[in-house]
Amino acid sequence: MTKFISYKQSGVDVEAGEAMVDKIQSYVSSTFGPRVLPSKNSFASLFRLDYDERLFKKNYKSPVLVASTDGVGSKVQLAAKIKKFDTVGIDLVAMNVNDMLTQGAEPLFFLDYLAVNKLELNVVAELIKGVAAGCRSADCALIGGETAEMPDTYAKDDFDMAGFSVGIVDRGKIINGRNIRKGDVVLGLASSGLHSNGFALVRNICLKKANLKMTDCLDELDGAMLGDALLEPTRIYVRPIVKLLSQYKVKKVVHGMAHITGGGLVRNIPRVLPKTCDAVIKKDSWPKHKIFTFLQATGPVEEDEMYRVFNMGIGFVLIVAEDFADSIIEKLTRYGEKVYNIGRITTGAGKLVLK
Amino acid sequence: MTKFISYKQSGVDVEAGEAMVDKIQSYVSSTFGPRVLPSKNSFASLFRLDYDERLFKKNYKSPVLVASTDGVGSKVQLAAKIKKFDTVGIDLVAMNVNDMLTQGAEPLFFLDYLAVNKLELNVVAELIKGVAAGCRSADCALIGGETAEMPDTYAKDDFDMAGFSVGIVDRGKIINGRNIRKGDVVLGLASSGLHSNGFALVRNICLKKANLKMTDCLDELDGAMLGDALLEPTRIYVRPIVKLLSQYKVKKVVHGMAHITGGGLVRNIPRVLPKTCDAVIKKDSWPKHKIFTFLQATGPVEEDEMYRVFNMGIGFVLIVAEDFADSIIEKLTRYGEKVYNIGRITTGAGKLVLK
Repeated sequence: MTKFISYKQSGVDVEAGEAMVDKIQSYVSSTFGPRVLPSKNSFASLFRLDYDERLFKKNYKSPVLVASTDGVGSKVQLAAKIKKFDTVGIDLVAMNVNDMLTQGAEPLFFLDYLAVNKLELNVVAELIKGVAAGCRSADCALIGGETAEMPDTYAKDDFDMAGFSVGIVDRGKIINGRNIRKGDVVLGLASSGLHSNGFALVRNICLKKANLKMTDCLDELDGAMLGDALLEPTRIYVRPIVKLLSQYKVKKVVHGMAHITGGGLVRNIPRVLPKTCDAVIKKDSWPKHKIFTFLQATGPVEEDEMYRVFNMGIGFVLIVAEDFADSIIEKLTRYGEKVYNIGRITTGAGKLVLK
Repeated sequence: MTKFISYKQSGVDVEAGEAMVDKIQSYVSSTFGPRVLPSKNSFASLFRLDYDERLFKKNYKSPVLVASTDGVGSKVQLAAKIKKFDTVGIDLVAMNVNDMLTQGAEPLFFLDYLAVNKLELNVVAELIKGVAAGCRSADCALIGGETAEMPDTYAKDDFDMAGFSVGIVDRGKIINGRNIRKGDVVLGLASSGLHSNGFALVRNICLKKANLKMTDCLDELDGAMLGDALLEPTRIYVRPIVKLLSQYKVKKVVHGMAHITGGGLVRNIPRVLPKTCDAVIKKDSWPKHKIFTFLQATGPVEEDEMYRVFNMGIGFVLIVAEDFADSIIEKLTRYGEKVYNIGRITTGAGKLVLK
């Protein structure tokens, strides 16, 4: 008798894929607003622009779509290691929506790509639950996604995820740093911790050098479990920023924004600076998050390297007109953010000066 | 002296990342049209909808954004194995744009996510070159992307890629299968080969069972090198389909379309069938691509399993009104497609009947 070989034997289970789609449906649809059109089973997802409705027409004279794609980097490996799967989805959304937010855009929708060694229904459901939670916080709809089973690329229990988001901004309201000028104030919004960058170094420090366990409770972290502290999800700044921008419909008071990701303040702030300005940032103007003190000492890692890799406690930066700084600080604080005046714009050459 | 540890030592090289961005710039910008706004260095990418211009207003009464995400699956591992990196990017674009095409949408823009063990400039450049080539064939702009260096997730020389695309369709012109009715004709467009599905099984057959080398030249493939035959890029159907749909602005003659991906004809055609119709497909109505004959015999793989996993030579399916079938065949042939009348719609229960 001939012994046939099949796709399932080769590591891919199509039926399991379909069961998964049913299982995550309630998470996914929890993010839907009225602009999402039904597209179950279809090859692509549908999102109405409301072009012919008055509300949209009124708000967008010349709409520009803003798109972003990002992953969570090595943070996913840490999540896989301690089998905590319900928060990296929040990170994934945060990495994308905080990026588009810097241009003054409001997020519309999100799609995720998830690649796994083997489809474990419960793991995938937890991951998507996190993505949906992130989407709800960011007021965007999770309209699609793909889960790929790739036994030859990913090790057992390992996975990767990428996110993709689309938002919208009126052309006249795009924020791109062009209006940044001498005297502007640099405001920093507190991060929740590491966010989603520098995890290759984090793993190197904690696992290889210091030989720590993710379940260790550490005095340096006020008794918190190491894994929990490292996995703390990235803060999503959509609501306070969108609300803030809606308060200044005519005046352009926010001149530039930066999402502090890989490369830290050092590399991300210069991305929005004009070639004629520097940003002078005072390191002691905000409280350092204890996770950074701990990592720096444990490595040890040189202080400059810390600022080149991590957000050091500031997850999002606004560069604002001096006259409006106090009122912006007051508003953002009222919206729930911890806001610090961390520096000034001076004449310069497009660089960041850390003092 | 204290021995500090750094991010670069931990496997991530930020400078290499920046050099890479410069290197791929010419590929990327080769895909730009006038709707792409400059966003070099910025956190997200910008694409004008042309809302306030007459052309757009005229063509889209109620625009709906259509979004899709997909990867290339295990085909990337094969590309990595034989170190041929300039075609899987075409597959990546194809998997996404062919999906959105089924709804009657035209692609606007594309973003890629690429995750690697280590940033090898030349490899990444080849990969992006392929993505850009795919985008040009699909008339969409490659407006953004992310390349993640994840030494702990991906094995040496290994990588994964995911794509995201956004297109647009007028709400009244969305094609979703609702109009499919008894008597409609099922047209199949020839695939270029395996396209991007079933590669876990392909690898199992060729590498594990038959112990073949990717450099073997095989008589069954008319002397072609196995690796080349397997990696033949996925056909992109955007231009012929968009052109065809533009010929029928008022009459709705195309009732449903399916992109034949994982699950083959068997699972993909039913995704667009109403619950009251079957599609009866005659297996002998198109020439089998020799790659499938070879894989089926080499496995061996049961014939039913072949049809459940592979496209078997048909990469894209249109279900069209009977009266227009001949004229559609003539048009698509003129646009360069190989078109086959592969079956009929009958009363039924939403199933595919393979004869």
